[in-house]
Amino acid sequence: MKNILVIGAVAAGTKAASKARRENMDMNVTVLTRDEYISYAGCGLPYYIGDVIKSKDELLVKTPEAFKKEFDIDVLTHHEAIDILPEAKKVVAKDLKTDKIKEFKYDKLILATGASPFVPPIKGVELNNIFTLRTVSEAIKIKQLINTGKVKNAVVVGGGFIGLEVAENLTERGIKTAVVELLDHVLPMYDKEMALLVQNELMEHGVDVITGEAVEAFEGDSDGNVKYAVTPSKKIPADMVIMSVGVRPNTELAQKAGIELGDTRAIKVNHNMETNIEDIYAVGDCAENINLITGKPAWFPMGSTSNKTGRIAAINLFAENAERDELRGVLGTNVVKVFNMNAAKTGLTEREAVKEGFDVETVIVPADDRAHYYPGYKKIVTKLIADRKSHKVLGAQIVGEGVVDKPIDIIAAAITFGARVDDLAKLDLAYAPPFSSAMSSTITTANVWLNKVADKVKGISPIEAHEKLSDKNVMFIDIRAEEEYMVKTIPGAVNIPKGRLKKELKDTPKDREIILICNVGKNAYLAYLTLKHMGFEKAAILEGGINAYPYELQ
Amino acid sequence: MKNILVIGAVAAGTKAASKARRENMDMNVTVLTRDEYISYAGCGLPYYIGDVIKSKDELLVKTPEAFKKEFDIDVLTHHEAIDILPEAKKVVAKDLKTDKIKEFKYDKLILATGASPFVPPIKGVELNNIFTLRTVSEAIKIKQLINTGKVKNAVVVGGGFIGLEVAENLTERGIKTAVVELLDHVLPMYDKEMALLVQNELMEHGVDVITGEAVEAFEGDSDGNVKYAVTPSKKIPADMVIMSVGVRPNTELAQKAGIELGDTRAIKVNHNMETNIEDIYAVGDCAENINLITGKPAWFPMGSTSNKTGRIAAINLFAENAERDELRGVLGTNVVKVFNMNAAKTGLTEREAVKEGFDVETVIVPADDRAHYYPGYKKIVTKLIADRKSHKVLGAQIVGEGVVDKPIDIIAAAITFGARVDDLAKLDLAYAPPFSSAMSSTITTANVWLNKVADKVKGISPIEAHEKLSDKNVMFIDIRAEEEYMVKTIPGAVNIPKGRLKKELKDTPKDREIILICNVGKNAYLAYLTLKHMGFEKAAILEGGINAYPYELQ
Repeated sequence: MKNILVIGAVAAGTKAASKARRENMDMNVTVLTRDEYISYAGCGLPYYIGDVIKSKDELLVKTPEAFKKEFDIDVLTHHEAIDILPEAKKVVAKDLKTDKIKEFKYDKLILATGASPFVPPIKGVELNNIFTLRTVSEAIKIKQLINTGKVKNAVVVGGGFIGLEVAENLTERGIKTAVVELLDHVLPMYDKEMALLVQNELMEHGVDVITGEAVEAFEGDSDGNVKYAVTPSKKIPADMVIMSVGVRPNTELAQKAGIELGDTRAIKVNHNMETNIEDIYAVGDCAENINLITGKPAWFPMGSTSNKTGRIAAINLFAENAERDELRGVLGTNVVKVFNMNAAKTGLTEREAVKEGFDVETVIVPADDRAHYYPGYKKIVTKLIADRKSHKVLGAQIVGEGVVDKPIDIIAAAITFGARVDDLAKLDLAYAPPFSSAMSSTITTANVWLNKVADKVKGISPIEAHEKLSDKNVMFIDIRAEEEYMVKTIPGAVNIPKGRLKKELKDTPKDREIILICNVGKNAYLAYLTLKHMGFEKAAILEGGINAYPYELQ
Repeated sequence: MKNILVIGAVAAGTKAASKARRENMDMNVTVLTRDEYISYAGCGLPYYIGDVIKSKDELLVKTPEAFKKEFDIDVLTHHEAIDILPEAKKVVAKDLKTDKIKEFKYDKLILATGASPFVPPIKGVELNNIFTLRTVSEAIKIKQLINTGKVKNAVVVGGGFIGLEVAENLTERGIKTAVVELLDHVLPMYDKEMALLVQNELMEHGVDVITGEAVEAFEGDSDGNVKYAVTPSKKIPADMVIMSVGVRPNTELAQKAGIELGDTRAIKVNHNMETNIEDIYAVGDCAENINLITGKPAWFPMGSTSNKTGRIAAINLFAENAERDELRGVLGTNVVKVFNMNAAKTGLTEREAVKEGFDVETVIVPADDRAHYYPGYKKIVTKLIADRKSHKVLGAQIVGEGVVDKPIDIIAAAITFGARVDDLAKLDLAYAPPFSSAMSSTITTANVWLNKVADKVKGISPIEAHEKLSDKNVMFIDIRAEEEYMVKTIPGAVNIPKGRLKKELKDTPKDREIILICNVGKNAYLAYLTLKHMGFEKAAILEGGINAYPYELQ
């Protein structure tokens, strides 16, 4: 009987094993893992800590016993693979409970060794109560510590997805939490003006956000428990620290066996999930991806991709050529909830698109997530990134209290097929008041982008506008009604309601630089047309208006 | 100065007018409408009746005064266009308040005359308190009648979107409501097994659903108020009736002027929204569409499309060739909420796809709308319709308590670009526990379809299964645990839990027809593989399992 061997038993490994079983009812399927827990929902760990998910059992999809009973798959926990012998088609593993060395023959081998948190060598990082959060075992320890009631202050190092989810969950449990991020904004994989909207949400919920600084040291008490995280400007109280600066693919085992790594240092695979060594596949977080937009190697260690690659490898093990499955690439689509704010992204950021040499044009467009007259609608802000020449959509980011996952998935689907912005504007999307606006945010955003590229309007981004605040030659005009202006506006803006523009600007020199401000950019667009008609040469609108402006208002 | 004239002032007309203004700051823009109310959210009317939307003002997007002040657009209400004179480039209109006849010159004319409810000539249809629901004026009258408290029983004639939304809203207001639908299920534009899931929801909320029958007459009291709706089998009490059997495009004006209609009897337009007469455009519900999948004329009178076509015509009025905008076609994507159930559809139904000559294969797949371990996830059922040879996605319907608008929009976006099912399975969609599953419903459904087409599993639909219930040669096996079987199963099914199949079926003839039943189809698939391995030739799984089975359980 033939042997299918899988190393790793979280998302990709268990998916590969169970699909391999369904494809091959007459073979042995064996899974080795050094861990105790298998087949768990890693993305749920922050919510387990936060007690949104009460029991660890809810995270555990299937036990080894269930794999045996339901699928006739042997899952050996506490078994660490230590060597692959491709010539002999064997894997050497150590039983961590007995220290026994065992050999496992394979006809086909699937590597699903995953990724591990990277822990920088900061002074004091070995102190007690400094954790990474990647496995169920770690989550259990963290939750136990929180449950003692002794954690009053926590520091999260790293402002990525997991870091922010952890910060929210700790805050919800009553722990005063600080996030330290090396870059100048949280969500480093987002463009700054979008990330700042999320950062504001964190701060509004009492999270202390320290950006542009690294933790230089941890200081502990006499028991060896962490007490402070020290940055160049601060000494932050910390009864607990979660290190969340990123993960690295687990590739030692593969490298030792001569399996090639890619540019990203993850295991290089072709579209069929095959490594350079025959009959060895790599799937999930240990495997490299291809960026669907650039065609270049990329690495997006995500549960959604893990499930796909696990399935593909399993199908391909014994498939005829025509039946082989493949993954052409990924977009790195993601979504995160941070308190009442949601943020989602697909494709390239503006800075990535510029770096790739695209002729980048972007717009920032606030919109309602459903009909404005149906109770419960909420705002979202969409940033669309596309190429000026080809109109090809390169990426999008959507942030707000409303539904962001739907429009990002629509755009991700469109990008997959090489959509142009013109195509986005014509999508036939489902509309009924409880679900959407008649003109969905995606369509409105696409139309604004097309207007901008056709030179029907000139817009400037919140970041540019913010930089011009100190420039006395620039006139910021808030064109909203006086009542709105009085509540909140951009510092230094004067108030000239739209209807009075013609009269009040008639003596203003036509070469004066003017930035027009409204709530979302739409009324400013009308005002812009009026000014153009009057002969103003350097008018522009603040893209996204007050709603998308992430800096201080007064 | 040039004149742009628009006839009609709901969604498409006002969109066309305001976009025409932005494109042409130096022209006159005039809108004629015979109605009192303009620029209203027609799709919100059922919710206004139901008091979900409290005030009619919430439905009114902009008043004529606002159009004048903000856009310098003249909106003339109570002005009915009665003649178009293409040679003279004039429209003759009647001021309904003064009965004066007026002429309006145009350089460009946009027809946005909309659609009107079709009222079949049923005996007694002229009785009091029988309404159609298309305009704000009608909604006001209906709401006033309900607010008197005298409406105890209501009948809705027609089980389409509006009919069901009205039935829900009347029920929520404490009115005992019956829906009469001529076809054998509500939601006539859906496939039956999907529509039945919605129909069950209506009945669970106390709505009396009468299908396969027409209302033959209405009977009234001595005051001429409706009292009963009479069908061949029933006499249904009715203090109020809403006629909702469908709408027809308003084309009399166009026809009189020699403007060509299409196969669907709506106004024929090209991709640029031009009619056969120069300088006359048609947009919104009065204009014909093209079905993006078949390339054939179609008519989907929807607010989402109205906004697009209004905008396109406005851009094209004076655009250079290169700047002209176009709509290549629509998919008829839609969504409706019915109590706690949501239903969405895009593209072709199974029966439409068969009629078009495709080699149709379908699957029905229940799934969770987000991570099964995150609180608040809900079930949805997806039906995917695709072509067996080309694998091209032809349509989808999604029904359930969970989020249906997101996956239908993803699939609609994919279909727009000619997606194959294989492409759907590889979409890189956003995943985090509060938003989605790692394997989203779209991907799971695509994988099931591919399995079925690759002959890895044989499935039968709920409708086929239901038809076989009386066939004694067919063995229905519920493979779930006994506890589940005891709660609810398909009438006549025997219980053989999956683990006991090998033992209990060892003496069963291998040519016995067997239908395997589980909750969603996934465990039945495993059982199917076991049976195939045992040599059974005529095994199949019930697609969608108990979760998607719309008939009686016991």
